[in-house]
Formats: sequence, C-alpha cells, structure tokens
Amino acid sequence: MTNVFLVGAGPGDPELLTLKAFRLIQEADILLHDSLADPRIVRMASRHCEKIDVGKRCGKHSASQSQICALLVACAKTGAKIVRLKGGDPMIFGRATEEMAALDAANIAYDIIPGITAATAAAASLQKSLTQRSKARSLHLLTGHGAEGGLPAHDWVALTRSGGTIAVYMGANTLPGLAAHFIEAGMDPATPAIAVENASLHTQRSFSATIATLPRRLAETTTTGPVLLLIGAAMRETDIKTATHAMADSVF
Amino acid sequence: MTNVFLVGAGPGDPELLTLKAFRLIQEADILLHDSLADPRIVRMASRHCEKIDVGKRCGKHSASQSQICALLVACAKTGAKIVRLKGGDPMIFGRATEEMAALDAANIAYDIIPGITAATAAAASLQKSLTQRSKARSLHLLTGHGAEGGLPAHDWVALTRSGGTIAVYMGANTLPGLAAHFIEAGMDPATPAIAVENASLHTQRSFSATIATLPRRLAETTTTGPVLLLIGAAMRETDIKTATHAMADSVF
Repeated sequence: MTNVFLVGAGPGDPELLTLKAFRLIQEADILLHDSLADPRIVRMASRHCEKIDVGKRCGKHSASQSQICALLVACAKTGAKIVRLKGGDPMIFGRATEEMAALDAANIAYDIIPGITAATAAAASLQKSLTQRSKARSLHLLTGHGAEGGLPAHDWVALTRSGGTIAVYMGANTLPGLAAHFIEAGMDPATPAIAVENASLHTQRSFSATIATLPRRLAETTTTGPVLLLIGAAMRETDIKTATHAMADSVF
Repeated sequence: MTNVFLVGAGPGDPELLTLKAFRLIQEADILLHDSLADPRIVRMASRHCEKIDVGKRCGKHSASQSQICALLVACAKTGAKIVRLKGGDPMIFGRATEEMAALDAANIAYDIIPGITAATAAAASLQKSLTQRSKARSLHLLTGHGAEGGLPAHDWVALTRSGGTIAVYMGANTLPGLAAHFIEAGMDPATPAIAVENASLHTQRSFSATIATLPRRLAETTTTGPVLLLIGAAMRETDIKTATHAMADSVF
C-alpha cells in the first residue's frame, strides 16, 4: 500500500479534477503543490493537511527541482499520506521523471494519477476536435520551452509534414521563432493557429489567427496565465464558439 | 443555459471521471452511452434517468453514426438534460465533430467536458513519462484504425523523424503493418514498444517489447479490451513497474 501519489491537477478548473484526485487531496496529510496551483484546489485538502508551496511550475532551475525531489522523499519517509500535485497531467511536460527517479532511488513506492491536459481542455472550450477524419488524423504535443529556456530543436519539417493538429505547451514566449520555423519548414502561412490563455478557467481568453499572424496578434495583448497554442486545419476559426461552461462560475 | 453535454468518460476506471462529468451524469435526464461504457459509470446516473445504449464505439458504420446524431438532436429538443457520454476524451479520436455538426445544424447549444485520454492513463499505470527532456520532447497521438477499417496513411517517415513518444489508439489489429511501416521509415527496430490493454482498469495488462517484436508478442495472446500502443525511447522496459493503483479494487 503506497502512501505517495503524484496527482494531475488538470488545467485549472477545480471541477476538472478526477474523482480520484479529489479523494486523494482530501485524504492527504501533506500536499506539495506548485505556486500556480488553483487556491480552490489547495483548499480542498483538510485543515489538518500541511500544504507546502514548492515553487513556480515554469522556469524552475534544476537546483530547485532537486530540492523538490529531496523534500518529496523526506515527506514520503514520514509514512504520512503525501499528494504531490502537478498541473495538467504528470506524464505530459510534467517533469515527473525526476521525481519518480528520486522516489525510486529511495525505494519508495508511489502511484500516479492522470489529469486533464491543457490541450483537451482548450479544445473542449473551443468546441473543436483535435482530431478529425478529414482534417487531422493525428495530434502532436510539443513544448515551446526547452531546458535552456529557449525554443527546443524540434524537427519542424517532420512536424509540418505529419499534417495533424499541433498543440504547443509553454509556447507564448517563443511563438515568433516557432511560427518562423514552421513556415520555413513548409507550413502554409494561412494555417489556422489559436492561442488559448488560462484554458478551462473563467478567465480563459482565446486569440484566433494563422500561423503567420498569431505572433503579432499575441504581441498586441498582455497574457499573464499559461498559454497553449493549437495549430492546424482542424482549428479553422470560422465557427469557433464561446463555450458557456468555461464562462460559468465554478461551484467551488 | 445549455442542456446538452458531450462528456468524456475517461479510459474506464470510474474514479478517473472528472468531478464535472460525475455531476452532469448524476443530473442527467437522458444518458446516451456507447456499449463499451463501464456499467459502473452508467449506474451513476439517477434511476429516473433514461439510459440509452447507442452502440459499439469502434467499427461504427457511418449510418450508425448519423443515427446517433439524429437521436442526440431529438433528445436535445425535448429540453431534458442530455449527457452524451464518450469514451476517453471527446476531442481525441472521439468522432465528436459529427455530433457537434448535427447539434449546430439544429441550432442547439452544447458544452463539452474533457476526459482523461487512454495515453496518459496508460503512462500513469506504467509510471513512464510520455515526455522526457532527454528522450522524448514531444508526444504524437495517432489512430491505427482508418475510416475504411485499415491502417490510415500516416506519414511514417515524419513520425519517425519527430523523435517523440508515439501513442497509437485502436492499433491492435493493424499493428503488424504499422510496425513494418515504422521500421521501413527508419525507426530503429529495437525501439521500445508497449501494448496496454484496458488501461486504468483492474483488468489492465501490458506487453513490453520492441517495435520489431511487439506484433509477434501481441499475436501470442488474446486481447478483448481496447489496446493502446506506446512507442519510443521513453518507454524502455527496464524499469516498467506494476502500478498498485491500477490493480486496486475500485470504490464503485
């Protein structure tokens, strides 16, 4: 019986937690969460639960990641019920590998609870299928934020050729370079591209453009929350609708 | 205020429903579900809820899909609270496009609730990150089942070159052709490949091999549930562990 859980917190809306995540958060003795975690989710933990903010999710230094790993292992060794809450899904750009390795090295068992990842939450709000038989037979998830803080060296030609929908996480800052790489790699400059800020929250905003025009469109505004980019023919803006559920007040 | 909800049911484990999906299922007057829907999830609906099995999820004919669309629209027009439950996430290989188009054509508003998709549930059970800074900076989701029932014409070279983790949905039947295409396209035959049957359920089984050997490995067994394939360096089998949570009895 394990007492350590790496739990996906989903994209932000507390109602997009899984039932299992909700139960484990309520049962936790210690909750380790990122600074970006929604306070409504942190408040789901019992008042006896020790809540520890382990720092910012993006732009973490490796030192800070190793400190989080050490803290996680130290907490786990107490035998208390530990929930390590991670934004989105732990297995998609969640840096879970480092934390799993630290637990493995300390011979501590753990379970991982998947979470809703931003791409599907954004697509649900936009009411656009990420895959469509005629327009996008595959879905490609990338990060726009490499280990050194810049754009990772993706194979832009291969991604363009694959012809599916492309979802870029943490790509707001590197969007100009990313768009240039795609167009240079042969992507039609008129390919639909949408930036979604704060997917699933009532503060969600989306910006529809093309891969050629989205960088300027996004530069004209100030985004403060996480931004997801969705690129591909399936994202054509003609019939993007505002989802009522994204705007509704949360029940929490 | 919309009364129609396309709801992701997740990979199978009822505890992997979102809180929002759970609430909407409980509130539904009419629940339209696939034959593969977990009976424990269907039973979450109230006893006053009309539960309609709209047929098999895979291998649907287009006639049957248009009948589902017509039924969905007819139910929606009654003004009752309708939940259309779809396996996994509605926006990933969920054929939601057809149902959204039917609702749009009838001028009926709806909301979409994302669900946990099989790839992240399988990765959580296997305790393997789908993305890893060193081994897989991207994740590629494909279907192994095309509109005509065979393998879709993916760009195998582009997918191989992209170097990320590849998750193939509904690929058990077409695996021999799929593996041959990847190897022909230049994928190292020793690339790790795992087949996961019934991801997230206590009947989950996984088969670890390489892209060259997985077809034979899978042919030696009989699978009855949905099979997800995970391919790439991040799936190396050396330290695949059995997740205890996948084996635990559900609380439902």
